[in-house]
Amino acid sequence: MSEVAHLDALFHPQTVAVIGASEKPGKIGHTVVANMIEAGFSGRIIPVNPKADEILGLPVVKDVADLPDGLDLAVVTIPVAAVLPAMEILAAKQLKSAIVITAGFKEVGGEGYYLEKKLADLCRESGIALIGPNCLGVISTPSQVNASFAAGQPGAGKIAFFSQSGALCVAILDWALGENIGFSRFVSLGNKALLSEAHMLAFLRDDPHTNVILGYIENVEHGADFMREAAAVTREKPVIMIKSGTTAAGAKAASSHTGAIAGSDQAYTAAFKKTGIIRAGDVETLFNLAQAFSTQPLPEGPGLVLVTNSGGPGILAADACEKSTLSMARLSLSTVERLKAFLPAYASLYNPVDLIGDADAERYRKTLAVVLDDPNVHAVLVLLCPTSSAQIEETAQAIIDNAATSSKPIFACYMGGVRVEPGRRMLLAAGIPCYAFPEPAISSIEAMHGYNQWKKTPDPHFPAIFGNTEEAAKVLAAVRDRGDVEVVEFQAQEVLRAYNLPTPKTILARSSIEAVAAAEKIGYPVVLKIASPQISHKSDVGGVRVNLGDETAVKNAFLDITARTQRLRPDAYIAGCLVQEMAPKGAREVIIGFKRDDQFGPLLMFGLGGIYVEILKDISFRLAPLSVEDARNIIREIKSYMLLKGVRGEPPVNFAAIEGILLSMSRIATDFPEVYEAEFNPVLVNNEKALVADVRLTLKA
Amino acid sequence: MSEVAHLDALFHPQTVAVIGASEKPGKIGHTVVANMIEAGFSGRIIPVNPKADEILGLPVVKDVADLPDGLDLAVVTIPVAAVLPAMEILAAKQLKSAIVITAGFKEVGGEGYYLEKKLADLCRESGIALIGPNCLGVISTPSQVNASFAAGQPGAGKIAFFSQSGALCVAILDWALGENIGFSRFVSLGNKALLSEAHMLAFLRDDPHTNVILGYIENVEHGADFMREAAAVTREKPVIMIKSGTTAAGAKAASSHTGAIAGSDQAYTAAFKKTGIIRAGDVETLFNLAQAFSTQPLPEGPGLVLVTNSGGPGILAADACEKSTLSMARLSLSTVERLKAFLPAYASLYNPVDLIGDADAERYRKTLAVVLDDPNVHAVLVLLCPTSSAQIEETAQAIIDNAATSSKPIFACYMGGVRVEPGRRMLLAAGIPCYAFPEPAISSIEAMHGYNQWKKTPDPHFPAIFGNTEEAAKVLAAVRDRGDVEVVEFQAQEVLRAYNLPTPKTILARSSIEAVAAAEKIGYPVVLKIASPQISHKSDVGGVRVNLGDETAVKNAFLDITARTQRLRPDAYIAGCLVQEMAPKGAREVIIGFKRDDQFGPLLMFGLGGIYVEILKDISFRLAPLSVEDARNIIREIKSYMLLKGVRGEPPVNFAAIEGILLSMSRIATDFPEVYEAEFNPVLVNNEKALVADVRLTLKA
Repeated sequence: MSEVAHLDALFHPQTVAVIGASEKPGKIGHTVVANMIEAGFSGRIIPVNPKADEILGLPVVKDVADLPDGLDLAVVTIPVAAVLPAMEILAAKQLKSAIVITAGFKEVGGEGYYLEKKLADLCRESGIALIGPNCLGVISTPSQVNASFAAGQPGAGKIAFFSQSGALCVAILDWALGENIGFSRFVSLGNKALLSEAHMLAFLRDDPHTNVILGYIENVEHGADFMREAAAVTREKPVIMIKSGTTAAGAKAASSHTGAIAGSDQAYTAAFKKTGIIRAGDVETLFNLAQAFSTQPLPEGPGLVLVTNSGGPGILAADACEKSTLSMARLSLSTVERLKAFLPAYASLYNPVDLIGDADAERYRKTLAVVLDDPNVHAVLVLLCPTSSAQIEETAQAIIDNAATSSKPIFACYMGGVRVEPGRRMLLAAGIPCYAFPEPAISSIEAMHGYNQWKKTPDPHFPAIFGNTEEAAKVLAAVRDRGDVEVVEFQAQEVLRAYNLPTPKTILARSSIEAVAAAEKIGYPVVLKIASPQISHKSDVGGVRVNLGDETAVKNAFLDITARTQRLRPDAYIAGCLVQEMAPKGAREVIIGFKRDDQFGPLLMFGLGGIYVEILKDISFRLAPLSVEDARNIIREIKSYMLLKGVRGEPPVNFAAIEGILLSMSRIATDFPEVYEAEFNPVLVNNEKALVADVRLTLKA
Repeated sequence: MSEVAHLDALFHPQTVAVIGASEKPGKIGHTVVANMIEAGFSGRIIPVNPKADEILGLPVVKDVADLPDGLDLAVVTIPVAAVLPAMEILAAKQLKSAIVITAGFKEVGGEGYYLEKKLADLCRESGIALIGPNCLGVISTPSQVNASFAAGQPGAGKIAFFSQSGALCVAILDWALGENIGFSRFVSLGNKALLSEAHMLAFLRDDPHTNVILGYIENVEHGADFMREAAAVTREKPVIMIKSGTTAAGAKAASSHTGAIAGSDQAYTAAFKKTGIIRAGDVETLFNLAQAFSTQPLPEGPGLVLVTNSGGPGILAADACEKSTLSMARLSLSTVERLKAFLPAYASLYNPVDLIGDADAERYRKTLAVVLDDPNVHAVLVLLCPTSSAQIEETAQAIIDNAATSSKPIFACYMGGVRVEPGRRMLLAAGIPCYAFPEPAISSIEAMHGYNQWKKTPDPHFPAIFGNTEEAAKVLAAVRDRGDVEVVEFQAQEVLRAYNLPTPKTILARSSIEAVAAAEKIGYPVVLKIASPQISHKSDVGGVRVNLGDETAVKNAFLDITARTQRLRPDAYIAGCLVQEMAPKGAREVIIGFKRDDQFGPLLMFGLGGIYVEILKDISFRLAPLSVEDARNIIREIKSYMLLKGVRGEPPVNFAAIEGILLSMSRIATDFPEVYEAEFNPVLVNNEKALVADVRLTLKA
């Protein structure tokens, strides 16, 4: 991430020039000036236009060259061909920040791509904080800045939002107006020529006006910067993001939009998990979470209580709770006794607390006070159906009053439409999230509980694993010097041994006589494997024989394997066969691998061997470097984990041994950026030890 | 299901008495009369109240005994103790139908339970169509009846709704008012003492006023009736239901509500699947689907085209499409050429068709006309973000006009809030479903596509499988006569053989000498298994030995097994050991079983043996009787199905053999209601044949 000064000038400018300001309503250059004025900006606005004298009552500067030096912010809306010349003049005048709204850059390809590069280089060299090009603009309510051509002025609030899609900005602004949601900063990032998500995260971390950060991203270009900044900020403020282009069709759409090339979804998921970013699956969830996080305290535990005036919705909510990581709070005996004192006989005193259809606001008020007092209750969801007795607004007031004196989060679900609307309005105005259905309320509480756990998670421990880097580098250099990309198993094992990874005793035999000698040295039974740099899937060509118990078996296997391979793959150079010790007894097969993601670096993978990976796709992922906790959890996340723990009285496998291999592989991945892909497959592990029985290393092409 | 006459009197009454009508606003007995009047009921309303003379301008009858004979409908709101005496009088007067709103029956337990039974018996014997007790009432717009105490009058429409939860009725009515959604019939079923979902389905099937049926159920009591009626109606009209109480906590809440006891969720899922009911996971989805199905034609295929004015939302929608059973339609060359003729250069001509942020209504209008014309397009989703150029209402009109001349379903997604609202209103009023987010739109189209496929599915084929029922019955009777519940393997095999199921050659040996003789008759190697009615999990007590190759091995195994079992289970009667032929070579283990669900009867289960069932829970279900198609699909639904098809060059297993076993088990399950549970585990199957290697049958206790 290039260090960018002047983000303060961008978000808190004193003087703002609008390059391409227009007299004509409807033109972008007009809307920007109008928006700045309407936002109540108290600094100086300078419209720039060669033909006009006055725009919206402001005196116009005819030429960029006539602008004063040291401007805080220039908003650029002129045609694409004019942008760079204007920016060059402004750069010479020590412009501090710029928002280039103009489109026609990278997203159209060809010449646009190079134009954008020149623009970015200019700004980088001149220290100009550049937003865009091809964006909607920036809104910063604390300084009453609306440097955008969006319709409508958002209110002030504690939520910051940045987005790669300008249209989504517009939609979210429009939504926020209806829901009375305010923003601190609102940034349309556009093509992200210079400033990107990472810069926003860095700025927002220390921004006293922001307590919740939202983002919509299609791709991240500087994965390491992004992750560093995200990890730092999520410890202090929740970051909620949508990553689109998750599927094949989505990614296809992404690559024709904003010139984005989407990274692999697994890598994004892993990056979000590693840095504590909360991923919203859709825009509705983003909205719901924004409302929840910005208004309510975090729950201190998973215990949820439901207070309802109707059974059906109570059941629906209990269903949703049960499917979440929350739990239905068990009310204490004294709570139940206190409720019994005033609730009617037919009410249900247990969770869900059913106040029955004739519940008035007072019944809700008293009940809420009692359940909020229960130490087993960490969050409350109040459900209301508009029964004929329901006091919709009075009940809203009862909820608001209880929330005012409690440090526990309170959510409401007012089911219905027209009749419940006034109550819903009251609740939202008072900062109580109110949903039309129980499910999104529970998802929001669940996300807040998860975030609270994330905040409390101790910092990860990174183990002191070091290999003989020099030795391994020598091996890889030799492969590279030969012009190979695949590292043959025998050499790959040398790399592994340099990192103290457990490899089977292996001897390369160039003839059947050497093979027998090797087998005798290792001890029968042995395994024979074809050794050829061109053949990575050895089994596919019949290149592996196991459990060879004597001289004849070894000799025959050698001749058979080499002959067969030569026939099937006449292109392949065959070095001979590897003679290897057999697997540990009763071992299970696991696969450990990594692939270098373009954005986020080595993505490690763990799974059980064979059909678990191939057919059931039962795999888990983590980005390097792996912490001790990562190594522990990547194993426990797969569905077939129970098989490693042992079923029907089997002993568990040696987990420490697998964790050690994972950590060493992570180390190799970070030590050698030239290794593009690695797979230990299978790793054989029983209750005593683990062995990397086969290995593939592939260098960057 | 008891045959119920007079449902027409319930939904189309001429004369309606309100028993317990009240002068006081706010009282239920007042609201019902007011609602009837306000609904514009043109028949006669007779308020019944001992003290009043006139209620809301209507002359009052003082006593039930004074009511005329042959009343169409009585709405009962008097205290619980008075209900039965009043109903007895009305029954004698040939009352045709009744809605008992009064609560205090089964849901409070004890005396209430018996009161309800008496009420139901009375109505059943007198031919009174009874809704309730403990309900909100019934609304029937075609006859301008609102016999409920709900607030607000719903408009007329083609959607019917019935619900076990009165509160949900209220919420849905309130929601519908805001969304301009109308209903044909609206029924709060309450405790379902007599009329239940099955009756509603039967009535609504032939109801010309209804084209979409919605339901909320917590439990079904007459599963067979329900399924028969559901299967009949879904061929003609979509039925969309919420089943709540799906999880442990939900079911707990359900059992304290309306006295419901929830059936197992798998059985409900299977019942819905078998009958073509569309299951909505939550109320929001129910709403969305109701809107979609009631307004739009069904898509004739999976091809969806997205037309958008912004890339980001286009990607989000493409992501959602890719995750669904729909596919992104591939536009034909001529469509692309036609679009190219008028779309700007930067527009994307491929799916998603991106009209770019400055798209006006005309661009939408032309584009929609072109894509609707493409035979690869089966459904259209129009996305609009409120960009500064967006013509929100004009675009709505363009969508409406295109929909009017097309037989393909069109959906809209207007992202935003305040600014897009007028367009959304226009679309909804014109019967175009309009959502705030792409995901629910795509889910709705997906459900409609699925329903269209269901409608086109040919009727299932039921195979002509018959067993020697007499022979099997004799065996089971013998077990029952002995007072046993578990059927020992040897006898269970006789049942299987009576249905021509492939069982291994098996001989019961009572001594080691008999065991050796049996092994010689069967041929080595053999399996030995303990034979005891008390021991169902034979492996747990070390009661199984496989691959016994000679006389000594068989003799030792017999002595060892019997001695060990006697020691571990001194309570068990040990009949000896079963001597069995070995498994087919290279066989895979599958499990086939059934359990009798209280509501829906035998629920068959299929899965791969071992860890696939135990740990990965990779199981599929179908309710008996299995059709040929069911038998085919239950196998193909499990995730590990590929293992049966064969991986890495293995031959596929003999699927026909497994299907045959499934169909026979289904037959046994329907032939013998006294069999509560059955499990064939393992069934061994290779590419040639299948063998039921072990079997458990359990009779009803």
